[in-house]
Amino acid sequence: MRYDVLTLFPEMFRGVLGNSILKKAEEKQLVSYNIVDFRSYSQDKHQRVDDYPYGGGGGMVLTPQPIFDAIDDLTKDNPSAKRRIILLCPQGERYTQKKAEQLVEYDQLIFICGHYEGYDERIREHLVTDEISIGDYVLTGGELGAMVIIDSVTRLLSGVLGNETSAVTDSFSTGLLEYPHYTRPVEFRGLKVPDILLSGHHKNIEEWRHRESIKRTLERRPDLLNERELTEREKKWIEILNEEDKN
Amino acid sequence: MRYDVLTLFPEMFRGVLGNSILKKAEEKQLVSYNIVDFRSYSQDKHQRVDDYPYGGGGGMVLTPQPIFDAIDDLTKDNPSAKRRIILLCPQGERYTQKKAEQLVEYDQLIFICGHYEGYDERIREHLVTDEISIGDYVLTGGELGAMVIIDSVTRLLSGVLGNETSAVTDSFSTGLLEYPHYTRPVEFRGLKVPDILLSGHHKNIEEWRHRESIKRTLERRPDLLNERELTEREKKWIEILNEEDKN
Repeated sequence: MRYDVLTLFPEMFRGVLGNSILKKAEEKQLVSYNIVDFRSYSQDKHQRVDDYPYGGGGGMVLTPQPIFDAIDDLTKDNPSAKRRIILLCPQGERYTQKKAEQLVEYDQLIFICGHYEGYDERIREHLVTDEISIGDYVLTGGELGAMVIIDSVTRLLSGVLGNETSAVTDSFSTGLLEYPHYTRPVEFRGLKVPDILLSGHHKNIEEWRHRESIKRTLERRPDLLNERELTEREKKWIEILNEEDKN
Repeated sequence: MRYDVLTLFPEMFRGVLGNSILKKAEEKQLVSYNIVDFRSYSQDKHQRVDDYPYGGGGGMVLTPQPIFDAIDDLTKDNPSAKRRIILLCPQGERYTQKKAEQLVEYDQLIFICGHYEGYDERIREHLVTDEISIGDYVLTGGELGAMVIIDSVTRLLSGVLGNETSAVTDSFSTGLLEYPHYTRPVEFRGLKVPDILLSGHHKNIEEWRHRESIKRTLERRPDLLNERELTEREKKWIEILNEEDKN
């Protein structure tokens, strides 16, 4: 996977891409990161990349020229590569694990990160393939969104995660929230591990965990249960939990 | 605002906190960042911070001791400060702009970032005040989530944003998505700016922008319209747009 990121703040990326799994993925040559300051593509004599909006109003707007030219340059060596050109913006589709699973199938992902400014609409309409928002909150720029997508997609690439790291964090692949985890010590500041986990009775432990998953999902994210095909057993548990809740 | 971050990867934060608005906010002494490697609090002779889960299964679990002790240390100087202790995890409440507006009222935000591992449930139940997820996707650790919250909250602190930067990006405060922006040149690669924006007729421009906002919100995020009190005029436009859509 080749990642290209157009940004005015290339230094923001070092810490995140240079540590942990994203660093290892690069060392294993499973990914490459190309962080591009698109100001260097500006044909303006002062290297400006933004200008006032037509029609008036506050805020600056990123001009089309530097971004169109940068994309031309980043795609010219391999015009037929399977790629997406992603604009990070609050108007975009909400990012989900499903989208990550779609993006991992491509050869090249190019990210366009604005920073305070808006984008000229022609960038949006005629250049980008995907507009994505990582959530309903306002960020200073698209950079954190690009990092979030890079992290979530890279984890899915074959060979990136060892077995030891893949197990715990995959709530969104089962469609249920995780059950509670406990580790040593058995008692810490008077707080104890539930007896069942110390019982050695694997079948009971498995059932307890499954029920706790259902319970937590029901309490916190009932919307996830609607999207999931429930087994008869799960339906029964939910009935009981709803009944308990009423009393 | 004082931010403390417990992480095993402190270097991940430099790029994001050391640039742009987050850097300026620190220089103006409006915020302080304290990035803590919580491994340094481990009483284990090998400085371990995780262990196998009781009851078996894959993955490692963060032990309570280093995190409880770190929080004790970070709160002891000012036990009565208005603070939140935030756990980044997929099971948490979904982060929104509204939550950012609540968090900005506190004096201290402490973030606990796991990395691949799960958390011992006692941390979750007896130490943290808020469990937050920044979206329905799987990330390698909580670090990017902490950065997202720090960025979105810091923007809201008085004195952080100048007027020049505050205008464009506040989609979620109006409850509508942004209208399209255009800047120079009038024509770029054959693509033109809409005539209305060049007309100089401010009242028409304002109406066009308002309608485009409604249109885009209707197309992409109709859920936002449900949460908003619409004016009679807006309701009329929506009727017309829905009618056009049918034909």
